[in-house]
Formats: sequence, C-alpha cells, structure tokens
Amino acid sequence: MYDLAIIGAGPAGLTAAIYAARGGLKTIVIESMAPGGQVAMTEKIENYPGFPEGVSGYELGGLFYQQAQNYGTDFVFENVTSMELMGKVKKIFTNQQTTIESKAVIIASGSKPRYLGVEGEERFRGRGVSYCAMCDGPFYKNKFVAVIGGGNSALEEGLYLTKFALNVIIIHRRDGFRASDIVLKEAKNNSKISFLLDSVVEEIIGDDKVKSIIIKNTKSAEKKEIPIDGVFVFIGTEPNTEFVPNYLETNAQGYIITDEFLQTNIKGVYAAGDIRNTPLRQVVTAVGDGAIAATQAERYLNSLENK
Amino acid sequence: MYDLAIIGAGPAGLTAAIYAARGGLKTIVIESMAPGGQVAMTEKIENYPGFPEGVSGYELGGLFYQQAQNYGTDFVFENVTSMELMGKVKKIFTNQQTTIESKAVIIASGSKPRYLGVEGEERFRGRGVSYCAMCDGPFYKNKFVAVIGGGNSALEEGLYLTKFALNVIIIHRRDGFRASDIVLKEAKNNSKISFLLDSVVEEIIGDDKVKSIIIKNTKSAEKKEIPIDGVFVFIGTEPNTEFVPNYLETNAQGYIITDEFLQTNIKGVYAAGDIRNTPLRQVVTAVGDGAIAATQAERYLNSLENK
Repeated sequence: MYDLAIIGAGPAGLTAAIYAARGGLKTIVIESMAPGGQVAMTEKIENYPGFPEGVSGYELGGLFYQQAQNYGTDFVFENVTSMELMGKVKKIFTNQQTTIESKAVIIASGSKPRYLGVEGEERFRGRGVSYCAMCDGPFYKNKFVAVIGGGNSALEEGLYLTKFALNVIIIHRRDGFRASDIVLKEAKNNSKISFLLDSVVEEIIGDDKVKSIIIKNTKSAEKKEIPIDGVFVFIGTEPNTEFVPNYLETNAQGYIITDEFLQTNIKGVYAAGDIRNTPLRQVVTAVGDGAIAATQAERYLNSLENK
Repeated sequence: MYDLAIIGAGPAGLTAAIYAARGGLKTIVIESMAPGGQVAMTEKIENYPGFPEGVSGYELGGLFYQQAQNYGTDFVFENVTSMELMGKVKKIFTNQQTTIESKAVIIASGSKPRYLGVEGEERFRGRGVSYCAMCDGPFYKNKFVAVIGGGNSALEEGLYLTKFALNVIIIHRRDGFRASDIVLKEAKNNSKISFLLDSVVEEIIGDDKVKSIIIKNTKSAEKKEIPIDGVFVFIGTEPNTEFVPNYLETNAQGYIITDEFLQTNIKGVYAAGDIRNTPLRQVVTAVGDGAIAATQAERYLNSLENK
C-alpha cells in the first residue's frame, strides 16, 4: 500500500515525486514510456530556468528522474489501463496485470499534439517540424515558417512567431477560422502574416532539415511546393486520459478540471501539468504544478492519519 | 520605453525575464538587492528539479540571472519607491531618481518571513534557524526541533516536521491558538508534538550551529534553557509591497490578488511568485508563475499593437 501513486513521469509527475518522497511519503510513479515524458523527446530546451546554455530534453528528464530516485521513489514502467478512485483506497490497474494500491493519486499523464499524419512529419520532428512556438520560435530568426491550423492557438502561435520569422504563412484547410474576432483581427493586421486557405499539407520535404512543403487546394485539388524553413503544427492537443474513469470531471476538450490547489472533484485525487485545465503548458509550469499537488496530497494524508 | 518592466530578480522575476526577452520583448528587471532574491540567501536547495545533488541558492540565483541576461534583459539595481500603473504607459520610480517607462509590468518582489528579532537569530540563519519546513525539514532527521508561532502555518509546518524530527516542540506566546480546529486537533493527536505555551524565545545559543534556546514564560517571567537542534520560525510573512499603489487589489494579508492568468485588477499589470495569493511559496512554483505572467504580458502587448 502506497501513500501516493503518481501517473506519469514527465516534469509534473517527477516533481510531485521529489516533493512527496522527500517529504517522507511512500511514493510510486507509473509511466508507460521513458522517464521525462514528452520532454525527453525535445532536442533542446532553452527556457527552463537554471540552464543558461540550454539543455537537451533527454538530459533534463534524466536529472528529474535521478532526483526523484534519490529520495526513494519507486518506479513501474507499465501502461495504466484503468483506475478505481472513489474509495479511501485507490486502485490502479496496468496492462501487465499489476494492481497498485494507494491512499492518494496524482494524475500527471500529460497531453500530446495532434499530428498531421503526412509523409516527412515524423522524420523532421525537431528538425523543422515543431508543435510549440514558445519552445522553438527563437530558432527561426529571419526564416520563413508555416503554421498549420485555423483555431485560436494556431493564430496566437502564428502571431508569436512573427517576433522571429521574416514571414509566417498560416495554412488552413477551410476558408473560415475557429478563432476569436480579436485574435483574427490581430493576425490580419500583422504585416508579417499571410494566409493560405482551403489548403492542406500533403508532404514535408527536406534533407537534414525541412526545405519545403507540398500543399493541396481542397477545392481545386491543385498542388504546389512552397519553400519553407519550419512547419509549426497546431491542429489541437489531446489529453492522455484514456484510463481515467468518467466520474472524474473534465472540460469540453477532455482536460481534467482542478481548483487552484489542483484537487479534482474526487477526494484524494489531484491533477498536475499538461493534463489539467492550465493556462500554459511548459516544463516550468508543470514542475510548479507537481509541487502543489504533492503538498496538497500530503495534507490530505495528514488529515486521514490524525483524525 | 520598455515593453515590460519586472520588479524583483527572484525566481519569478528572472523566469518572467527569460520568457519575455527570449520572446523578443524589450525587458528590464529592477531589483533592490542581489539577483536571486531570497533564494540567494538559502544555503542548499534540494527540491528544485534538475539538480539531483542539490544546489546552493547563490549558485541557482546566478544561473537564473545569467539565463535572463543571455536573451538581452536589462537590469537596474535600485530600490523601487513608487509606481504609476493606471495609464497605457506605466511609470516606475526609484530611490536613485530613475524613472522607468514600460507598457506592461510584472510585480515579483516576493515576501519575507517575520523575524523573531532575538539574539542569535541572524547569526544562526541557515545553521539551525529556518523559516521553511519544506525546504529544511529533511536536514533534521531524528533531531529535536522547536517551532515558534501559534497560527495555522506554525501548526501545519510543525506537523510536516514530525516526518523527520524525533520531537517537535511548539512554542507560542499565548495559551490559545489562531489555527483551524482540524489542524489543531491533528497537532494535538500527534505523539511527536508537544506544546510550550505562554512562552517566548529570548535567545538562540550555539557554536557553529544551534545548540539551545532560552525561553521566558510570559506570565511568570521564569526563564529556562532547552537543548534543541533546529528552530523553525513561523510568526507570519510580509509581502514586499511598500511601493505598490493602493488601487492595486490585495487580500487581507497584503498579498496581491490575481486571477489564474496572474492578471491583477489593473490592465497590463501582473503579479508572480510569493507576492501574490498563491497556494504554495517555493522556487518551483515561482518560476511557473513567472512564465505565465510573461506570456500573458506578451499577449496584452500584442493586442495593443495590432488593434
């Protein structure tokens, strides 16, 4: 029986483990992939404070992992398939038929960007294909970039990229946008932004990095090749909540709803990092979440013990 | 004219600077002391993720500072005396008669613990005298510690310290507590906690570290010496808001009120880190705040430019 089970070994989950295990809680982390989560797949992180020369995501994830281990956190690398969260004893089931019991749970399983699913996308990930303007924008100073998508986040990230890029072309499969009027107006008034509507990306082409994209007009089926240095994909993100019971409250997009103490609607169950309804999804905000969730879980456990 | 002025060069302010300057904003940080803020005075930080062996506060503050400088942040080391925040151009005045103008402002000037003001307190700070159980508790495994104070935070931190210490003696100048019933009950039911009421600390004694304290009974004036390894002081904290105009909304304790986007009640003015109504005051939460505030300030500036 654990005091605390944490789902996910990304920045939020590992920070929760550092705080909980250092604070004397018997803690286990369950992760389906490698430690570090999505971060481990990021080539270079420049905006996590403490690393002035930048750090590879793989290295940073490893440091977080080591720090959580130093305080005696247990780790299981299996896939969570379902959970029972209602009672005082929470149960977590994995694809290896493991059942983990704990008194409190922090869900920190993150989210993933939706992929275009076109040729070249996977090959050039981190070498011209990006899913985060704030992370990778500064690498595209005076370059030509394409933004794929037509929602608020596509336009906002496009606006952000104008700080660096010479030109930002926003490519959207429809001729209208699902964005707020104010953001759309800002984008239209920005001289660095141009639009290519009724268009989808067919292929991403390059050698060691991206050189061009093939665009197809969805109405005329006409194709053309556009030279480009970077492709930023913003066609939505998806929370990793396949295993989360439906009595846990989520918003319309499926992200778990928490209060400012990161408590969900179920007692003893917390959500931290990209998985929750957070205003910003960055390593630096995920670690803060992890610490808050662990601290609150510790208070909850204290209240059980000393009643 | 700056895009963004940040008050305070602690973890929140420096992270805001990293995000803002890296994002292309003309950014200035105004700090009254040295870079790093309160952190720079912390001997060893074990729970900031990315440093598995721990890091001195001085070193970590220096790394944050260097990272903010790398992206071209300007720094001014002067005392802010007052601010004009209502108009589109915000004005910040310092004790050196400098006036800084900017379009947006992030207040990240932190808070400070209230000190006992007794002999030995300053001398043994970081060597037996602490103001943060979560930071320093693990250094007191199987030791005897005293907690000074009678509010919720004193009792909660006392409960937290029972995870490490052999015995926690809570010393309070009155015979009643200003704490919630539930926390008080938890403390009374915890066998590791004892109470010394109607008592104040007169002096902290030691050689290279704390060895004992002199306690005076406030009713009988009787004094006694108690052997102790650590003294944790929780008699309140104070936000550093002397220079903040009174039209900026604060809570009853003087902390600046923000929404989840860290916006204050004044347009273009944000608060980040210990200075705001936050559920946890740690380096790891302050850096997350800094990133959110900078991102929101950047959006605000975008909306001004492209209207």
